Amino acid sequence: MTATFTQCANAIRALAMDAVEAANSGHPGMPMGMADVATVLFQKYLKFDPADPYWPDRDRFVLSAGHGSMLLYAALHLTGYARPTLEDIKTFRQIGSPCAGHPENFELPGVEATTGPLGQGLAMAVGMAAAERHLNAVFGDRLVDHNTWVIAGDGCLMEGINHEAVGLAGHLKLGRLIVLWDDNKITIDGAVSLSSSEDIPARYRASGWHVAECDGHDEADIVRAFEEALASDQPTLVRCRTIIGKGAPNKQGTSKVHGSALGAEEVAAARVALGWDYPPFVVPDEIRTAWLEAGRRGAAPHAEWKERLAADPDRLGYERRGDVQETVLEAYIADLIANPQKVATRKASEMALEAINAILPETIGGSADLTGSNNTLTKGLKPFTAQDYAGRYVYYGIREFGMSAAMNGMALHGGVIPYGGTFLVFSDYARGAIRLSALQQARVVYVMTHDSIGLGEDGPTHQPIEHLMSLRLIPNLDVYRPCDTVETAEAWALALARTDGPSLLALSRQNLPQLRTSAPENLTGRGAYCLVEAEAPRQVVLIATGSEVEIAVAVRDELEAQGIGADVVSMPCWERFEAQDAQYRKDVLPAHALKVSIEAGATLGWERYTGDGLRFGVDVFGASGPYLRLYEHYGLTAGAIVPRIIEKLNGEQA
Amino acid sequence: MTATFTQCANAIRALAMDAVEAANSGHPGMPMGMADVATVLFQKYLKFDPADPYWPDRDRFVLSAGHGSMLLYAALHLTGYARPTLEDIKTFRQIGSPCAGHPENFELPGVEATTGPLGQGLAMAVGMAAAERHLNAVFGDRLVDHNTWVIAGDGCLMEGINHEAVGLAGHLKLGRLIVLWDDNKITIDGAVSLSSSEDIPARYRASGWHVAECDGHDEADIVRAFEEALASDQPTLVRCRTIIGKGAPNKQGTSKVHGSALGAEEVAAARVALGWDYPPFVVPDEIRTAWLEAGRRGAAPHAEWKERLAADPDRLGYERRGDVQETVLEAYIADLIANPQKVATRKASEMALEAINAILPETIGGSADLTGSNNTLTKGLKPFTAQDYAGRYVYYGIREFGMSAAMNGMALHGGVIPYGGTFLVFSDYARGAIRLSALQQARVVYVMTHDSIGLGEDGPTHQPIEHLMSLRLIPNLDVYRPCDTVETAEAWALALARTDGPSLLALSRQNLPQLRTSAPENLTGRGAYCLVEAEAPRQVVLIATGSEVEIAVAVRDELEAQGIGADVVSMPCWERFEAQDAQYRKDVLPAHALKVSIEAGATLGWERYTGDGLRFGVDVFGASGPYLRLYEHYGLTAGAIVPRIIEKLNGEQA
Repeated sequence: MTATFTQCANAIRALAMDAVEAANSGHPGMPMGMADVATVLFQKYLKFDPADPYWPDRDRFVLSAGHGSMLLYAALHLTGYARPTLEDIKTFRQIGSPCAGHPENFELPGVEATTGPLGQGLAMAVGMAAAERHLNAVFGDRLVDHNTWVIAGDGCLMEGINHEAVGLAGHLKLGRLIVLWDDNKITIDGAVSLSSSEDIPARYRASGWHVAECDGHDEADIVRAFEEALASDQPTLVRCRTIIGKGAPNKQGTSKVHGSALGAEEVAAARVALGWDYPPFVVPDEIRTAWLEAGRRGAAPHAEWKERLAADPDRLGYERRGDVQETVLEAYIADLIANPQKVATRKASEMALEAINAILPETIGGSADLTGSNNTLTKGLKPFTAQDYAGRYVYYGIREFGMSAAMNGMALHGGVIPYGGTFLVFSDYARGAIRLSALQQARVVYVMTHDSIGLGEDGPTHQPIEHLMSLRLIPNLDVYRPCDTVETAEAWALALARTDGPSLLALSRQNLPQLRTSAPENLTGRGAYCLVEAEAPRQVVLIATGSEVEIAVAVRDELEAQGIGADVVSMPCWERFEAQDAQYRKDVLPAHALKVSIEAGATLGWERYTGDGLRFGVDVFGASGPYLRLYEHYGLTAGAIVPRIIEKLNGEQA
Repeated sequence: MTATFTQCANAIRALAMDAVEAANSGHPGMPMGMADVATVLFQKYLKFDPADPYWPDRDRFVLSAGHGSMLLYAALHLTGYARPTLEDIKTFRQIGSPCAGHPENFELPGVEATTGPLGQGLAMAVGMAAAERHLNAVFGDRLVDHNTWVIAGDGCLMEGINHEAVGLAGHLKLGRLIVLWDDNKITIDGAVSLSSSEDIPARYRASGWHVAECDGHDEADIVRAFEEALASDQPTLVRCRTIIGKGAPNKQGTSKVHGSALGAEEVAAARVALGWDYPPFVVPDEIRTAWLEAGRRGAAPHAEWKERLAADPDRLGYERRGDVQETVLEAYIADLIANPQKVATRKASEMALEAINAILPETIGGSADLTGSNNTLTKGLKPFTAQDYAGRYVYYGIREFGMSAAMNGMALHGGVIPYGGTFLVFSDYARGAIRLSALQQARVVYVMTHDSIGLGEDGPTHQPIEHLMSLRLIPNLDVYRPCDTVETAEAWALALARTDGPSLLALSRQNLPQLRTSAPENLTGRGAYCLVEAEAPRQVVLIATGSEVEIAVAVRDELEAQGIGADVVSMPCWERFEAQDAQYRKDVLPAHALKVSIEAGATLGWERYTGDGLRFGVDVFGASGPYLRLYEHYGLTAGAIVPRIIEKLNGEQA
């Protein structure tokens, strides 16, 4: 006997409720509510091959409502992925299980994105769909031709980032993007109507989307809506009217079924209601067979695709995308050494990008409406638009969070390396996505200019204070604050060559002298190094980053003039420095010297390197004024710093 | 001769272009484009009295497009506010000038909110309009009856927070909110059409707004649209079709006029085009007279309002709102001491709130759809809805950023003290608003629960790691991480009594024992204090916060059992501790002891207090699992910590 559609969907429901019950933790409501929609998607529409989860031309599926992770785990398991096994599902939400509380791309092949922070999955899918169209424009249908599917809940749709993502997708006419909205009218607090009166279809239409609707529990109606979505050349929102927790007879349709185990009694009642007469975690053979058959749909197209790729004239170019060496800018850096320039590091970044974008066709640049300030657009880079997906520059609009999440999606999609700009202070707007870049190990490069009070007159709303240190705190994010053209180029090379996480470049608005006169190796890759050595017997080590390295050099010169030897250590990247061996770190920051940090930002955290030395920085909000005045105002000048160092050396301070 | 409307508007244009020219920095485009709309608003509609910028029943005006600050400075100056003087305007964007690059509420009366970070002004205005309706519901039209006006640009409308704010305002039917959209079709990168294809009026209508339109340079048409807006019982978006930089003949209508000085030549040409035949910063008497007259419109209604207030039976209740003493919870705390309880600090917060909300009618609570998890709703608190503005609990929906910005608006409005909840990890979503709470010195209380890996199975997307330290880095934000019921109550009392800035409570999901057995003073107000003193000769000081204080006590007990004396210092608030005198700090953290920090979060920053001691924490992303397992996994148990302390004491470590 062949399994029915409903039986297949109930397999998802049963696995979800059993796994949540075993963990006594999790979210059964969404998987049970969207089981029918997911069954249609995975059995009939989604293009994938469980034998190779990384087949580049697979459809992408993002579970934006990440709390419903069991829906995804169940679908991957049932369609025949090697993992999760049934044992994996039984260890749902336990340490070491690939079935984490929320889906984690780094734990389980088949999970395209790490989701849970609401709204971001959908926004990442926009980036995936954009990457697909770009690669399609470059390589044609023969190599790149797939859809991006999303399941999103009311939470995803209410978050601000949804507005940014939807606006961007509509503008770019990403017709291969299909969002399945789990319209169950329930949020954690109760009815959606407690907090929202929005006409969601009207809003999506206002942003250039097509909207389809279906009964999310009616197979034929779901199929009809999917066909409508696929036929549209606009991105499509499919409103799936569902009952949250469908199958749990006493709790379905209420917020009670959202985020905790149903309890033994309700699970038993659900088994009766669903006609699911099997023990926990048992899926009968005929249902397994139907699912596995659906999972094999992709094998033939995958094989054909491989044949096409093997014969494709662009094969090598296609396959090498993303393969970047740390030496990528060696020639350019040699040129800088030969021809020193005094420019802002944001300009130095543009210069590096000129070299990069000419060499690497896989970069896709952009800015959140600060192109001329972030210096992210290089000569000859055409805009990425609905009319020309071959373009490599995205005008993201005033959407910092949306941009950052889209870049995550691009990086996760692969085949492109995204970079995007905004002011460093607005890293706050994008922080949720920056964190996900780091967690997802996504190669995204954040170009964040106007990186201190050095931006001057725009004042405290625009002057980063706590941002550098706050970003350094994010695990797996490499934060660079280069001091000149050479370090900026070195940082770019490192960021592009890094394949296991994001990098962020904090760049100055103001001009800075080129302090580096040689490049024996990529010294920025060391994280910190002695830029200028003491001449007099060394008593002081000055540690600075970015625009304050110039000040440190001035401080050193004044100290040396008084017979006090001082090293200047440039420390463009804390994370890289921490990765050096102990001997190197001791050589750069020797124990028996007064360590002094100079950075135009929060001093909290610098104790790590200065010990009980001195820290110069800005621990209050900035102010509006010309930048040199601000440096004076906050005591960040050689004239203000030198006396305090001498005082400290003389032991005059408490 | 009486000045014409156009002459009055041109006074704004001239002051804006002259000030930007003098500073050689700033944004002339918006003030020149919106000068006509602002003239209608300030001369005919806005209710205010320059003689008392803090008249509580004034209309609120928020310049959400804060870069156009000169529009606001010009209007305040021309209508007769004491500041800015003409001299102030001449020092636009210089250190010490009240005319900062972006409007700053703490610098200049008449500036209702600090704006510049786009979208947040509008979102704060939603909070102001909500506060107005609430106070109106409590005190009636006789004391509270005013409108909230906003000028917003395309940037404000494109930001994600706009979606959240608009959704909330529409849902709450805040009909007294009117947003004037500067529809000039230009962003920094060029035409709006570069990055957006949105039908903005349709989107606003989809969210329950009324939309009016006008020619933003036609006085009569502006008046008509304003009347339409005032007549609507929905919040209204007034689409003002304008030309950016209107009056600058060669640059108007382009992005060139947005963000830099026009240049001497174009300023001269603008003077000709505008028929403005006066030297820089000179406004002729008849134009000044017309403006001052408009500025006096509010004097009579203000006087009448004062008379009504003087005679009002609710006067004392009205005037005392916001007057909270640190002793507000003394009786409740005494009760806790008498009846210790082991509960999660999120539950302890709810218990404190039960006491607070009963005593203080000015609190307005809420949550971003995590009411049951944040424990923010107390018994008897009714929802704040379009049908009942007297309610004191806002179901903010899944809108962390919108909630936080709305709370800023409420606090700035005055008469209410807002608090709102989400998970600590989602402080990332709200970070832009949290920073503005701190910068604006707004009394907002953030209730952030699930404050560490202690939340367990939801995994790394939901487990804060870097968040505590990142938040401590924000200037003027008091971050509390209480260890038990008593500290939680003390933190609440301090947060409510604080009038010059926000507080954030980081609270546990898991249960914690009550460690405090006495409350001789508000010890949390000290920031840190010795909770348990060493018995054996003190060799170690253990410093912990929140849920790790319990662990520190266990570590101490094991050390003491081995004859090693150890203090346990609970440090619920770094900022408060930093404010103590040097002697107190030395007493708590004596120089000659091994300092050891224990906090389930990033260790970077703890060097400040441990020096070269030890730091126990979590410097990588979290994981999904039961919380006690996670504490073991990350080495945050007495069993893992004690041996390392002993090793360190024995000097066995490098």
